[in-house]
Amino acid sequence: MSKDYAIGIDIGGTGTKFGIVDKMGNVIYSDSVSTTHVTSPEQLIKVIYDNLQPSIISHGGINNFVGVGLGAPNGNVYTGTVEWAPNLPWKGIIPLAKIVKSQFKIKSLLTNDANAAAIGEMQYGAAKGMKDFVMITLGTGVGSGFVVNGQLVYGHDGFAGEFGHTIIFPDGRLHQGTGIKGSLESYCSATGVRITTLEKLESTNKPSLLRAIPEDDLDAKAVYEAAKKGDAIAIEVFNTTGEILGLGLANIIMITSPEAIILFGGLAQAGDFLLKPLRKTLEAHLLPIFQNKVKILLSHLKSSDAAILGASALVWD
Amino acid sequence: MSKDYAIGIDIGGTGTKFGIVDKMGNVIYSDSVSTTHVTSPEQLIKVIYDNLQPSIISHGGINNFVGVGLGAPNGNVYTGTVEWAPNLPWKGIIPLAKIVKSQFKIKSLLTNDANAAAIGEMQYGAAKGMKDFVMITLGTGVGSGFVVNGQLVYGHDGFAGEFGHTIIFPDGRLHQGTGIKGSLESYCSATGVRITTLEKLESTNKPSLLRAIPEDDLDAKAVYEAAKKGDAIAIEVFNTTGEILGLGLANIIMITSPEAIILFGGLAQAGDFLLKPLRKTLEAHLLPIFQNKVKILLSHLKSSDAAILGASALVWD
Repeated sequence: MSKDYAIGIDIGGTGTKFGIVDKMGNVIYSDSVSTTHVTSPEQLIKVIYDNLQPSIISHGGINNFVGVGLGAPNGNVYTGTVEWAPNLPWKGIIPLAKIVKSQFKIKSLLTNDANAAAIGEMQYGAAKGMKDFVMITLGTGVGSGFVVNGQLVYGHDGFAGEFGHTIIFPDGRLHQGTGIKGSLESYCSATGVRITTLEKLESTNKPSLLRAIPEDDLDAKAVYEAAKKGDAIAIEVFNTTGEILGLGLANIIMITSPEAIILFGGLAQAGDFLLKPLRKTLEAHLLPIFQNKVKILLSHLKSSDAAILGASALVWD
Repeated sequence: MSKDYAIGIDIGGTGTKFGIVDKMGNVIYSDSVSTTHVTSPEQLIKVIYDNLQPSIISHGGINNFVGVGLGAPNGNVYTGTVEWAPNLPWKGIIPLAKIVKSQFKIKSLLTNDANAAAIGEMQYGAAKGMKDFVMITLGTGVGSGFVVNGQLVYGHDGFAGEFGHTIIFPDGRLHQGTGIKGSLESYCSATGVRITTLEKLESTNKPSLLRAIPEDDLDAKAVYEAAKKGDAIAIEVFNTTGEILGLGLANIIMITSPEAIILFGGLAQAGDFLLKPLRKTLEAHLLPIFQNKVKILLSHLKSSDAAILGASALVWD
């Protein structure tokens, strides 16, 4: 029997998004819950199940659903497990696809959240028709999905694509979650932007709109708002972040030579404040054969939909 | 008509190797010429053609050859051109496959030298049966070939795999050939090892066997010989080189998660002097999910044969 819908669940460090997607890629229902306010992955899945239940019933019942696609940090497509995800509240190896299957009683497939976003972008977004591109998700962490010859790069064990944890400054800033020093994520995630902001505010007496903001509220969005008002320190924060990301992207361009790099997530919304220094630094570090070739694109998908679409795309045949 | 032989040509920064290979992967004839002592790529190919002519005739004539496979820095499989290769004496865009085709009157295909070595390793060497691995060639330069899902990663334009030119220390050592600062190749090539040695000798008054060697003869091989005799500075040179290479390899493991990394070329012959610090630094920079998984292997192919085999493998159907 032909099934009309798929469920997509995207588990992030702070929030989990989920929804129902039809064959054309329309998200016909979606919602989100906090990832940290539940005590276990089983409970998280139960909360999502209960939330979706009325919509599942009104769309023909669970037998009209092809499966549940899951995106999560360190999600492994081969084993269906999330293993030692630094940005999730659960440690160890979590059999997430199995937990979902027990709860929903349908097929469940898992991959890492950035890979899921890459699949969504390839099917419905800015990477339509591309065979070689890189998806970078700039959120609580920095995720990445590499597509080569039209296929996702999973690596021999399913864990490929951890660009965010590569070292950009040996012995640089300590990443609290991983203990690794100088990783790209320690600078270019929302968390990294916050730390850079605090460091810059402390290192100078220059006036800044950011000084009026309580330290707990000093997030990437606040920095963006200040940059739009011309705040010099806020602009400097994006310059620094863009330069570091540009350096990292130059490295992956020289390794995989993609047609495009697609940026997704909250930080990407800083637009030219981030993209101008990024592009400049990126080009300056490329061999001539790579220069002025690679498109730097912003995701075409609504940020609330992309991960759900990508995760759901895993389960269509 | 079934053809029995292929020709492989591997063009390096200093020397060019070439040979005749049969279907079983036996190199039945090989020789080499200097790359820098000819005035043009046309002359280089003419010299090789004249050298091979007697062997071609004694093996059934050119009609018994399937084609000429070429490996060269910045060699592009899609266009058959070598473009702006920093380590070759010719600048600009060289239509190498076309030059070879005009000279030999048979099919000619080109890829970058490290990709060719990776193909050779996959067909005849340490990567037999592997679908995800990385080949690193440590010679005058540092080359790399990435295999994902059993396919070489060429990228959208054919230039993927320039791991040697990725930046490992932002604003680090200047690479004379590229003008890029802090690239892996500026440290981990034979040239880089020589510079590291000179720097270490200059920074201290410690006695060293290396001080007795005329500066022009201070190459990676001389440093290896000194290390074998217990020379502290020579050992330190390999420690530093191995640590930097280990850091770079940690980054590519987190991106592509290969089953193995295969090291090839002169420097790899330094064995444990290089591999011990490499392995230690590599593991220290990996996320736990990648630790103690990736095999670091030395090439199984005779160094004189590997590139010829790989290049020749390009033209078999």
